[in-house]
Amino acid sequence: MDTNRIFELSEIADKILQGKDKDTDIAPVVAELRELLSDYRQGSVGMAQLNPIAGDIEYNAKKIMKYISYATQIGLDMVLFPELSIMGYPIEDTIDRHPIIVDENIKWLKEIAKLTTTTTAVVGFVEPRKYENKTGKKYYNSLAILSGGEIRSIVRKSLLPNYSEFNDYRYIEPSPVVGAQPPETLGMFDEENVCECEKTNLINNVRYGFSICEDCWNNKTFFSSTLYGIDPIEELSKENPDVFINCSASPSRAKKEQLKHNMLSFISENYGVPVVYLNQVGAIDNSSFDGSSRVFDKDGVLLARAKSFEEQFLIVNPVKGLGKIYPLTKGLEKSLTEEKKFTLDYENDLERTYKTIIQGIRDYFKKNGLKRACLGLSGGLDSTVCAVLLADALGKENVFGVSMPSKITSKESRSDAELLAANLGINFAEMPIKDMVDTTNRMFDDLFSQVESKWDCRYEKSFTQDNIQARSRAMYLWGIANEFASCVPIATSDKSELYMGYATINGDMSGGFAPIADVPKTKLFAFARWMNINRAEKNAIPEAIILKRPGAELAIDEKTGKPLIAEDALMPYEFLDEVIWRIENKHEYYQDMIDSEFLYEKNNKVTKEEKTEWLNKFYRRMATSLYKWSILPPSVIVESRSINKYDYKQPITSSHINYKGTDKSDIVRKLREVAKL
Amino acid sequence: MDTNRIFELSEIADKILQGKDKDTDIAPVVAELRELLSDYRQGSVGMAQLNPIAGDIEYNAKKIMKYISYATQIGLDMVLFPELSIMGYPIEDTIDRHPIIVDENIKWLKEIAKLTTTTTAVVGFVEPRKYENKTGKKYYNSLAILSGGEIRSIVRKSLLPNYSEFNDYRYIEPSPVVGAQPPETLGMFDEENVCECEKTNLINNVRYGFSICEDCWNNKTFFSSTLYGIDPIEELSKENPDVFINCSASPSRAKKEQLKHNMLSFISENYGVPVVYLNQVGAIDNSSFDGSSRVFDKDGVLLARAKSFEEQFLIVNPVKGLGKIYPLTKGLEKSLTEEKKFTLDYENDLERTYKTIIQGIRDYFKKNGLKRACLGLSGGLDSTVCAVLLADALGKENVFGVSMPSKITSKESRSDAELLAANLGINFAEMPIKDMVDTTNRMFDDLFSQVESKWDCRYEKSFTQDNIQARSRAMYLWGIANEFASCVPIATSDKSELYMGYATINGDMSGGFAPIADVPKTKLFAFARWMNINRAEKNAIPEAIILKRPGAELAIDEKTGKPLIAEDALMPYEFLDEVIWRIENKHEYYQDMIDSEFLYEKNNKVTKEEKTEWLNKFYRRMATSLYKWSILPPSVIVESRSINKYDYKQPITSSHINYKGTDKSDIVRKLREVAKL
Repeated sequence: MDTNRIFELSEIADKILQGKDKDTDIAPVVAELRELLSDYRQGSVGMAQLNPIAGDIEYNAKKIMKYISYATQIGLDMVLFPELSIMGYPIEDTIDRHPIIVDENIKWLKEIAKLTTTTTAVVGFVEPRKYENKTGKKYYNSLAILSGGEIRSIVRKSLLPNYSEFNDYRYIEPSPVVGAQPPETLGMFDEENVCECEKTNLINNVRYGFSICEDCWNNKTFFSSTLYGIDPIEELSKENPDVFINCSASPSRAKKEQLKHNMLSFISENYGVPVVYLNQVGAIDNSSFDGSSRVFDKDGVLLARAKSFEEQFLIVNPVKGLGKIYPLTKGLEKSLTEEKKFTLDYENDLERTYKTIIQGIRDYFKKNGLKRACLGLSGGLDSTVCAVLLADALGKENVFGVSMPSKITSKESRSDAELLAANLGINFAEMPIKDMVDTTNRMFDDLFSQVESKWDCRYEKSFTQDNIQARSRAMYLWGIANEFASCVPIATSDKSELYMGYATINGDMSGGFAPIADVPKTKLFAFARWMNINRAEKNAIPEAIILKRPGAELAIDEKTGKPLIAEDALMPYEFLDEVIWRIENKHEYYQDMIDSEFLYEKNNKVTKEEKTEWLNKFYRRMATSLYKWSILPPSVIVESRSINKYDYKQPITSSHINYKGTDKSDIVRKLREVAKL
Repeated sequence: MDTNRIFELSEIADKILQGKDKDTDIAPVVAELRELLSDYRQGSVGMAQLNPIAGDIEYNAKKIMKYISYATQIGLDMVLFPELSIMGYPIEDTIDRHPIIVDENIKWLKEIAKLTTTTTAVVGFVEPRKYENKTGKKYYNSLAILSGGEIRSIVRKSLLPNYSEFNDYRYIEPSPVVGAQPPETLGMFDEENVCECEKTNLINNVRYGFSICEDCWNNKTFFSSTLYGIDPIEELSKENPDVFINCSASPSRAKKEQLKHNMLSFISENYGVPVVYLNQVGAIDNSSFDGSSRVFDKDGVLLARAKSFEEQFLIVNPVKGLGKIYPLTKGLEKSLTEEKKFTLDYENDLERTYKTIIQGIRDYFKKNGLKRACLGLSGGLDSTVCAVLLADALGKENVFGVSMPSKITSKESRSDAELLAANLGINFAEMPIKDMVDTTNRMFDDLFSQVESKWDCRYEKSFTQDNIQARSRAMYLWGIANEFASCVPIATSDKSELYMGYATINGDMSGGFAPIADVPKTKLFAFARWMNINRAEKNAIPEAIILKRPGAELAIDEKTGKPLIAEDALMPYEFLDEVIWRIENKHEYYQDMIDSEFLYEKNNKVTKEEKTEWLNKFYRRMATSLYKWSILPPSVIVESRSINKYDYKQPITSSHINYKGTDKSDIVRKLREVAKL
């Protein structure tokens, strides 16, 4: 039989269900699908790779209901929804402060259950605990298994991630048992009424073992280290299920995918049991979820894979071998090197980077009722890359690029900015900041002389002039956002410069969203080239912008008389990005880096003094940037580690850490000194 | 014997050790103390209530060493330091990204151990796990028990808080055993080598049971609900210790103290064992620790209590009944009502509020190398209270108040601001913003007409004018901060207004620190009056400022022709603050509040329509304020619940939550509609 037709019809139905095709009648599509699927009924699974909105229960529940109806009508055994699908993941502390939303998610869940018939639906929700023993947290992260108008059983998450952007453990209690518990335990479960019944579920004579996200990430053979004592999959395997099901909400991060693919393949092969892994899609604040849901057969071979960064309803049958493998976004593939070595060859990860950020921007705007973006176009790389991403995410008509030249801005920068806007087709305005800067300077002269009369601590050299320019520009952009509906100004800072605090508070780092705050500068160069090749409109980014050495054009270099080049003020970006990479990925410290050869050193002559100076500067600047990280607008997490405040937590008041370490003899001497009293 | 002399000498020594008294020779003080303490030697404990700096290991270690020497010289059995005292608490993810600091804290600890002699020192540190089984997190939160030049044993924290501002569980593994383990397990401990030795420690024939902070917060009889399955204190009690010791780092929050006092008293009485509870003092970013360390005798009666919000070395003997009870800051006392009812009577909590914030400001500045603050003085309540707090925390000479009137600013506001500055003795400048506003408006006319030609979505009524004023002022303040050394501009937003998003991005909510971001407006009125009575200089705050109805003076009310009053734009503050209080403390939702009588309703006529309108406005405005909460500068957490992003986590992308709930019949109807496909 030609299974291609199944996937063809499935894609047509997807478009109708997603509202992208309003002209086609779904009834004949459904009828034909039902007919084609009749041979595959036993063991058939619909994987609803959906994009929820955190806390918007009505929106999520209605979407779920629609897909349950669809799955029922085409005659599937089962339809799966992602982790916490009714509530939306993540929901964080909201469930504690506003418990009404937990009540609501239960109310909607119960009504959904009543409307189920022949197809089993697996729906993620926040479950209040019975809490009779008054111990632990008040909620579980659960799956409800629904059919025939009833809740059939409940599965609860045992392993709760509590690192990076994950905070499950704050208000969720780890389940003391894995797998299914009886329906009457809904909201009534605690350790005292663990049912010693079957933990797996028999549905149309196929036995399924259900787990939730992190539950499948703890295989002690596969991982060199694990976070938890128990392995829920191992537990479930004891009942010899025919299929493992895992419902997830797992965001995209650099190099995570290789691990995930290999791990899922390992599990299926190791237990000789197919694995169905469903992941949500869409972005919420700083996290962008890639979907890429998949099925491995009992030999660990990929049988099916959904699209990445798109909603899709993928029909599979892990028992009968029905599935389709959609192409993976480059950078999500398993061939991505895991070697721990810094490289400037970002090629492998650029498509993923692009889609991760595009989805991040698009969903932040859409889910928060926003529509338009305005940003400064300096003719530099950061604002250029942001402009391209915004145009692609929001539509060019919804983006306003404003060139705001000062006296330092070069003619080339102005024309590059204008050309870029024209190439992209975004709206463009030019608005010099001279008057604002002049006025501010005049006011400052007066103000500073008043302050100086009381405070004898005026800097000989300050960044005031630089900052006036950046802040004037932000003043314009926030003005536009205040005056025009649903418009958000964009913070254009990149990761390398944020590490160095090379960003102005209430200036370029201010905005409602920061698209590239987790992309290092050297990657941005590669990214710009990649976009010029891979976007439908080729070469939208003028070559001059990519070739130009970055500089904020806020100050004149006294030595050259030309605008200060950022690398001269900081250090070579290639060196800087390797320092960041070594700290984030290898947890190296000062001396480790002194002792290693950097890629930059291979290609350039670097004296020991220079290297030492750069490293000293790095740590000095990083220490005083911690505050800036804490006030950064929401941004998309892209790399495997970041400085996003929801991902990485360091007290600002740790700015005097000695990152160099101390000699033992120094320690002894210093302690003896104070021991004298 | 006269024990008063012990505490008298102890206070003299404290001043010398803290560097506050550089003229007095410590030797005779030490000698006399040693003599006086000779009868109390057995069971004597020095409680070093210190103020650490997160990650500044050398600073912390040297301080610890100094007090060990002192304790040894005066002949105490033991000296205690707070939780994680060498590392500083909290240190968060820093130990993962920069493991060098963990190595460092071990190096310093080992050298400290070598310098101990007759007095046992109990020092908190981050301990790397052996990690041979490669499961769990990499670190323990531990205490080292040191004497005679050696590490005698190690105690590890079992209960790890992971709510509010606490993130212990992110990188710390809960210890599988409570109490002492042998010294050779330092860095080598895992579940496989649990020593079945004594869990309590015999020191000079007194038996001690050690625990760390949260370990003592899980008594199932005392608490109506608990977070953890085990109770470390119960475990320790099985070895019949003579004294329980708990080393903590526990920040001050409204109403927490009553609980803490009663709990510690309950534990000592329940087990018939004295409790020595040591808490750190000082502030780190958003958390302000009160100290107030104490000792309860075996009958649960308070025997000793250290000062609040101050470093102190308190000498006690829980076995022989030696101790002194220092007065508690009002608001920290156990008589604070726990009744769950909203009140405008804040009197009970104002001294604590004051000291919590003063310490928060002072330590944030000092520990980050900052010295000066500048703020706008509007003549309104928020900036006024901030100015007083800053003057008291940093010294009046280090504060610059800038009056920045616009055409809307009343004459009274200007003179009130000037009078306040004069009363406080802080520096003062007046700098009208007219030119800046005019220039900005001129630029905006040009800019907006360019934008309007492309975007057909200009608001009929916008906040652009209001925001220009607030942003011009922030521009001035950040200018001062850029031009003068170690100066921080202050964000003056209060809690009530932040809930309503009634604060300007890059305007009044911008700054390096936000002193009153967790103080509701009605409390600020009481606070201002309290400061006028309780500060050394009486009535520094002009009565007119307290009497005036708050308004941002950014816009003219069309109805009255006068500056818009905030309560007219929002709702009565008394009502608003009760909504906040009900949500934060009682987790009420919309309908709960519709159904309850508010305090404001008791004293004022409120129609059902008005109340509904206010509640609708509250939820609508709160939903769009989530972004503002995410970019707020560091601030001091004061109330029992807050919107501080390090304390409360809600996705910004949850702005469409339905806080009102849905009727069951609506749910059924809506689900049936979508089920049709």
